[in-house]
Amino acid sequence: MAFKPIDYLPYDFANRRHIGPSPEEMDEMLSTLGVDTLDQLIDETVPASIRQKSKLDFGKPKSERELMHHMRVTAAKNKVLVSMIGQGYHGTVTPPAIQRNILENPAWYTAYTPYQPEISQGRLEALLNFQTMISDLTGLEIANASLLDEATACAEAMTMAQRVAKSKANAFFVDRDCHPQNIAVIKTRAAPLGIKVIVGNPDKMDATKVFGALFQYPGSYGHVRDFTDHIAKLHAEKAVGIVSADPLALTLLKEPGAMGADIAVGSAQRFGVPMGYGGPHAAYMACRDAYKRAMPGRIVGVSIDSHGNRAYRLSLQTREQHIRREKATSNVCTAQALLAVMASMYAVFHGPKGLKAIAQRIHRKTVRLARGLEEAGFKVDPKSFFDTITVDVGPLQAAVLKSAVDEGLNLRKVGERRVGITLDEATRPKNIEAVWRAFGIPRRDNDFKPEYRVPDKMHRRSDFLTHPIFHMNRAETEMMRYMRRLADRDLALDRAMIPLGSCTMKLNAAAEMMPVSWREFSRLHPFAPLDQAQGYHELINDLSAKLCEITGYDDMSMQPNSGAQGEYAGLLTISAYHRANGEGHRNVCLIPMSAHGTNPASAQMVGWQVVPVKSAENGDIDLEDFRAKAEQHADNLAGCMITYPSTHGVFEETVIDVCKITHEHGGQVYIDGANLNAMVGLSRPGDLGGDVSHLNLHKTFCIPHGGGGPGMGPIGVKAHLAPHLPGHPNDGGAEGPVSAAPYGSASILPISWAYILLMGGEGLTQATRVAILNANYIAKRLEGAYSVLYKGGQGRVAHECIIDTRPFAESADVSVDDVAKRLIDNGFHAPTMSWPVAGTLMIEPTESETKAELDRFCDAMLAIRAEIADIEEGRIDRENNPMRNAPHTMEDLVREWDRPYSREQACFPPGAFRVDKYWPPVNRVDNVYGDRHLVCTCPPMEDYAEAAE
Amino acid sequence: MAFKPIDYLPYDFANRRHIGPSPEEMDEMLSTLGVDTLDQLIDETVPASIRQKSKLDFGKPKSERELMHHMRVTAAKNKVLVSMIGQGYHGTVTPPAIQRNILENPAWYTAYTPYQPEISQGRLEALLNFQTMISDLTGLEIANASLLDEATACAEAMTMAQRVAKSKANAFFVDRDCHPQNIAVIKTRAAPLGIKVIVGNPDKMDATKVFGALFQYPGSYGHVRDFTDHIAKLHAEKAVGIVSADPLALTLLKEPGAMGADIAVGSAQRFGVPMGYGGPHAAYMACRDAYKRAMPGRIVGVSIDSHGNRAYRLSLQTREQHIRREKATSNVCTAQALLAVMASMYAVFHGPKGLKAIAQRIHRKTVRLARGLEEAGFKVDPKSFFDTITVDVGPLQAAVLKSAVDEGLNLRKVGERRVGITLDEATRPKNIEAVWRAFGIPRRDNDFKPEYRVPDKMHRRSDFLTHPIFHMNRAETEMMRYMRRLADRDLALDRAMIPLGSCTMKLNAAAEMMPVSWREFSRLHPFAPLDQAQGYHELINDLSAKLCEITGYDDMSMQPNSGAQGEYAGLLTISAYHRANGEGHRNVCLIPMSAHGTNPASAQMVGWQVVPVKSAENGDIDLEDFRAKAEQHADNLAGCMITYPSTHGVFEETVIDVCKITHEHGGQVYIDGANLNAMVGLSRPGDLGGDVSHLNLHKTFCIPHGGGGPGMGPIGVKAHLAPHLPGHPNDGGAEGPVSAAPYGSASILPISWAYILLMGGEGLTQATRVAILNANYIAKRLEGAYSVLYKGGQGRVAHECIIDTRPFAESADVSVDDVAKRLIDNGFHAPTMSWPVAGTLMIEPTESETKAELDRFCDAMLAIRAEIADIEEGRIDRENNPMRNAPHTMEDLVREWDRPYSREQACFPPGAFRVDKYWPPVNRVDNVYGDRHLVCTCPPMEDYAEAAE
Repeated sequence: MAFKPIDYLPYDFANRRHIGPSPEEMDEMLSTLGVDTLDQLIDETVPASIRQKSKLDFGKPKSERELMHHMRVTAAKNKVLVSMIGQGYHGTVTPPAIQRNILENPAWYTAYTPYQPEISQGRLEALLNFQTMISDLTGLEIANASLLDEATACAEAMTMAQRVAKSKANAFFVDRDCHPQNIAVIKTRAAPLGIKVIVGNPDKMDATKVFGALFQYPGSYGHVRDFTDHIAKLHAEKAVGIVSADPLALTLLKEPGAMGADIAVGSAQRFGVPMGYGGPHAAYMACRDAYKRAMPGRIVGVSIDSHGNRAYRLSLQTREQHIRREKATSNVCTAQALLAVMASMYAVFHGPKGLKAIAQRIHRKTVRLARGLEEAGFKVDPKSFFDTITVDVGPLQAAVLKSAVDEGLNLRKVGERRVGITLDEATRPKNIEAVWRAFGIPRRDNDFKPEYRVPDKMHRRSDFLTHPIFHMNRAETEMMRYMRRLADRDLALDRAMIPLGSCTMKLNAAAEMMPVSWREFSRLHPFAPLDQAQGYHELINDLSAKLCEITGYDDMSMQPNSGAQGEYAGLLTISAYHRANGEGHRNVCLIPMSAHGTNPASAQMVGWQVVPVKSAENGDIDLEDFRAKAEQHADNLAGCMITYPSTHGVFEETVIDVCKITHEHGGQVYIDGANLNAMVGLSRPGDLGGDVSHLNLHKTFCIPHGGGGPGMGPIGVKAHLAPHLPGHPNDGGAEGPVSAAPYGSASILPISWAYILLMGGEGLTQATRVAILNANYIAKRLEGAYSVLYKGGQGRVAHECIIDTRPFAESADVSVDDVAKRLIDNGFHAPTMSWPVAGTLMIEPTESETKAELDRFCDAMLAIRAEIADIEEGRIDRENNPMRNAPHTMEDLVREWDRPYSREQACFPPGAFRVDKYWPPVNRVDNVYGDRHLVCTCPPMEDYAEAAE
Repeated sequence: MAFKPIDYLPYDFANRRHIGPSPEEMDEMLSTLGVDTLDQLIDETVPASIRQKSKLDFGKPKSERELMHHMRVTAAKNKVLVSMIGQGYHGTVTPPAIQRNILENPAWYTAYTPYQPEISQGRLEALLNFQTMISDLTGLEIANASLLDEATACAEAMTMAQRVAKSKANAFFVDRDCHPQNIAVIKTRAAPLGIKVIVGNPDKMDATKVFGALFQYPGSYGHVRDFTDHIAKLHAEKAVGIVSADPLALTLLKEPGAMGADIAVGSAQRFGVPMGYGGPHAAYMACRDAYKRAMPGRIVGVSIDSHGNRAYRLSLQTREQHIRREKATSNVCTAQALLAVMASMYAVFHGPKGLKAIAQRIHRKTVRLARGLEEAGFKVDPKSFFDTITVDVGPLQAAVLKSAVDEGLNLRKVGERRVGITLDEATRPKNIEAVWRAFGIPRRDNDFKPEYRVPDKMHRRSDFLTHPIFHMNRAETEMMRYMRRLADRDLALDRAMIPLGSCTMKLNAAAEMMPVSWREFSRLHPFAPLDQAQGYHELINDLSAKLCEITGYDDMSMQPNSGAQGEYAGLLTISAYHRANGEGHRNVCLIPMSAHGTNPASAQMVGWQVVPVKSAENGDIDLEDFRAKAEQHADNLAGCMITYPSTHGVFEETVIDVCKITHEHGGQVYIDGANLNAMVGLSRPGDLGGDVSHLNLHKTFCIPHGGGGPGMGPIGVKAHLAPHLPGHPNDGGAEGPVSAAPYGSASILPISWAYILLMGGEGLTQATRVAILNANYIAKRLEGAYSVLYKGGQGRVAHECIIDTRPFAESADVSVDDVAKRLIDNGFHAPTMSWPVAGTLMIEPTESETKAELDRFCDAMLAIRAEIADIEEGRIDRENNPMRNAPHTMEDLVREWDRPYSREQACFPPGAFRVDKYWPPVNRVDNVYGDRHLVCTCPPMEDYAEAAE
């Protein structure tokens, strides 16, 4: 009476949900590749010498349901108190429509950075709104599309100031009222660059000694000061004035631009983005027009397409290449796009009136709170404030803080005698009463007249958010449709494979994403007492332990909130190690020519000298050159930075020698973890000889790219480096911090943790194997049509492959750009273009794509090759052809058709879906025009009216 | 030092989020209407005589944030125990990808019923998948697109059996092992129809006495019985055999079709749809091909479009009109589309192997549980079972149930000595151990060999879900894209206004929707002990009180889970009242000709005789005719059914007279609440003289339409009727139930509650006023171009307006269908077509649409009128024109263009968005073809392969 047993595990997440190809599909693919088993393919691809000894084993993987339960239990260990800590992090009210339609919508969160503007017009518009908002609020002409966090924005502003200041001074002044984490990150950044940081009272600043100065506004302890005179003094000495400003306060207070500031930075967190125990949020930077070309980060600009229609794009993209050079002083190469989009939508949602009303309410509540304390005899500082006060409680500090916790509130410990209190949008009258009770004041919040504590001269005089987008009808119906329209203009992972080499655009599973929205993860202040964040710490500890197991390292720092930050933190760790060993002079870093551009930039940022190492013909590191350079610089060798598998997509067997040579000459080995998706479960950088690696959690470990951020770049280190990992002013630690928050963008760590728990060791290993299978399948199917540039010893590629389009330039006047844009007609985001080799495409399918989708892509690529052949052989015009005119829009179909090929051929090449065709909203975007006519805020009303048609 | 105060409430949900037009827009609209104030417009529209005396006052409305807090507090009062109650409701694991991408995605939940097939191909495909799944699992040829719940499906099956059976018997046999709520609802339904219900042991059934019989499979207490012989006996007597089957069990067990069943019904709840304290879930019905035209509910079918391409549509739509006639025996006019879509996606997600594996796991767990009990000496019934057993515990029943609760489990009370235990997909080994502990057995679930308790002859022999859609690659990436592609084919509220008269397609705000997903609301069994559902009861009580206040009634029943169910329940209540007064003979119901079609159908269902009342020229009820009919039938007058404001969109002043006349002649007044959105805060049906009304919570109170369900149709009654409201076997109550669960689809009640709490009394009233404003604005703008059929005394319409397209049939050969389809080219869902008057369009914009969207619609309508004029005046061909060829697809653009008008004119009429154009995936669908060639399951593989291109 037994049922016939079913050979099927319905809850097998790894093999049936995360990994794309089904077992049957894999068999077909292996057969195409001419191997019998996946084992055989892996053996041919990953050299035995670098394979890890034991299998990755994390016990039984969890089902999605078990995961949700586990997450809930963990979340429950975080206690959500009302935060009045302030210090740059604030309670905020995320409009549910924004939460559901942006943060929880794969159309937004699975998008890539908008490097291909034609398929990114939606998020580019949202980011342009962000820039307009920042530019308006700060009163400065140009804003970028966000930075990682306020503290790193401050540090970036410092180095930018050094770049643009005519003053030759070598010191940087920092207002002592800056948030402590801002000061700390600035100090970390300044030290290796030889910048002297002077922290002090702005009124006593000696402008002759500095190339720039940073002021916090309002100050960390609440002060609202006018820095106009200070900045004037700086200008007199050709130094640069920077204000780090709370954008919500700027709706009421005199803006940095009106004070003469050259640069403004800050955090847009309180614009509807939850605190998330530290992040991710969008920091911002704005500057005077004169300095725009020196500004780090991405800038969205307005250009035109090939028909002259308005089109958005990333401006000054070539400028972004600067970070690839050894002269770089910034390695910023990402943003916090998803969070900037949320913040911009929050501003659209509320408009200038709404934002002002919110700010006024906060201010009035703060005054009421202060009045209550004053009337009870407490000394409240400062006189003029926006949302933050401090109270001198003498020896009772601990008692008041404890009493507040008992009332469900976190206040801020300021020095040894003071308590800081910051109010926000979410503060309720009952919270104010609870504060009073914590101070022993039994009082109701109901007998106050509105009162203000900002002197008239500090009031803002100028308008802001005057653009129509901030005055649209903000009914939810309209907002929902606006968000949907923008999302529909973009092509993200929820519609098609994004085969971007080195970017690992894999599935971001719904189960992994859900806990991010839970209040137990989203509502914690990064400086909340440890005992209120036990869930987070369990998660961080377990995730760290598992990442150590995966990488072969001994310790992990979760602080870096991007891959580049991880590199930088890793090199700082090595530097500190050398110093601790009395070898602080070691400052030479060997970097292969094929490295990620951020590698030399990061090395530069820690004050190292970059020595490039040649590549061999086959793309491998030239071992002889490496040995020679290591010997040559043996006395000063700090280390090397290598990527494994290489940026050419090959597992080099020489890696172990490279590490040995480096160690023999006193250096430390940094292995860039960008390509870790080809290694997990098969090979461990720590075993190969690496001393430190960063991990891109937003690549290998499923944090979505968010349309250009967030990311997370934790670093793993060997035990000898562990004492030198980044510290944080809150936690002590020998070294300074690299990020504002101790654990970086903590609220997205549940995603990576969930991924590992769902996959288990075997599943993670299988994912790696299938990522390699998928890449080799593509390489095989494109064989003959395209040449694959680099292969391993047995003719296999790793998890990505580089195909050469350079020959077509001559043979058919077809550029790599033409191929990329023609892929849009086929319904695909282009692979990585011209990196690491100009004129090539680097394709990384990841393990999450099914055979059907890989085939659709290969069909598209082969059809493109056939079109190129048609040009080569004269069957199509060399100038007027589907490649050159790509991408084609719906408008093209409607217009008079005078092309020598058909509408059908133009718009429905083999990769394109018929019914579900993706249409780019613009034709090919003109990059040169955009950079020549730089417009980085929303176009004026008239343009808008046109566009609405 | 005061800031200039801001006249703006940033958290004003009613006026800034829910209500579409901004204050400025409203001023412009009022000026277009030639009135000075909204007050004036309302005075001109809503007669003073029917206005309510006092303002609606629910205290201060909540902000979205306050609402979420309040919801969380309420939710926390529901205790989520592991349910092992069974009885038709089961724990299930909703795949997170389905939860996020369907249930929480406005593209799915804001869609309307797919009456306009061209803009509904996505959900039609999903529903066709549902039908295919049901047809396969039950082994019957035809399935419908879902019914309201299993109990009403049983009742529908009974009446359908009566329609198709050749037996002249008047009794219906019901297996005593049917779920008690199924038996109860059948009895409710049978009584007024004069059907005798015989509940008994199927083995003792006398087939000669019945026209049909219903068997539960597996039985409510676990039995797995073969009904083949019983059904054969029925067939011998020309009676109909019905099996109510658990679809998950059918993956392992002999299917109803193989037993010879004529009809199968059941619930697809356990296919990934949470229990939700009773609903909503999709019930199903399948039948033999011969009976398909007698099947109630909607059926999706396959047809072709005007180019001969495959297109889905609702089949036999004319059949749906039958319910409008007095001969109706069913008033079903909705489905549970959103939940059927979820269930179908669950089947796609798991495929036949996965479903079988899940079912086998459940069965093996149940056997283990039984073994543990048996080995400890307990008597376990039955011998052969799938997932349910009962245990005789003698006098210890209460103790065991209590002990189980202490262990975190709910078991089922069966009779006075037995305990029922049902396992499901979500049951874990630790739950099994907890059951044992509740029985005093200390045992671990780790020492069992797999064992089965289903006899071989009961095993399923046939394949199911053989269609490729259930064998697609089910990687989450692929599933996510499939769900997105389907969603993108449809036009829902998240992209455009859906101006459907009488359907009230208003904003379904994100904040209102969010709590539906919370486990405290979603995971409760409808028969969970009351003390575990305190949150629900607080919600239901407060919502009821507020709805009573809004409507002027004294009590409310939440049981009816659709509007039509509400009508039916209301009439039953009146019937019971008459009976209680010794006037059970009263059975005549006056219904105006203009009534909703469900009105007479519902009257028919309670055994009443429908007497139609004429309409006056202006659309009002003909008062003289009404009076005459009331007098004529005074002795037997049961009541009247009227709609207010009338289905013609007018506030009739005569309503009070109508009520008075009815009462004077001994009748009760049923006021249909379909148009309540025009009344809330202005007028109360209870004050007008109504004795009972149903409320469409999915219209007026923001429950989304879900693409054709869920709905909720609670009824409000005056105090004298309260004792006669529907009861439930679980709770006692004098009357029988109308739905399976005591509170209908309880888990969507938080939506309506949230809406009321967010709006407050003033906000709700303003919503009504703006709904009237929006409708009058449209009427005004279309003036001259179209004639508006019905207006009130002062020339105003209520919340909707009917425009006449009949003249164009002659003048331009343009039908109302042409206008509707041309609106699709303009990016709009058509208004309600040909109802209540053939050849007209009824437009209801609701208060949630902005002026800009209203203007876009009016521009589209005016452009259409201009096109009609072009035809009328010979400037365009009468046969080959944009109206006749509408809607135009992307394919039309690509094809050779031989039309006498341009592509531009075809595809970009004034209403169409340029960049964000909505493209219907098919051309006009051929209704006749579809009904002639009825195909109601997924087309075969070959067709699929074509479509993939």
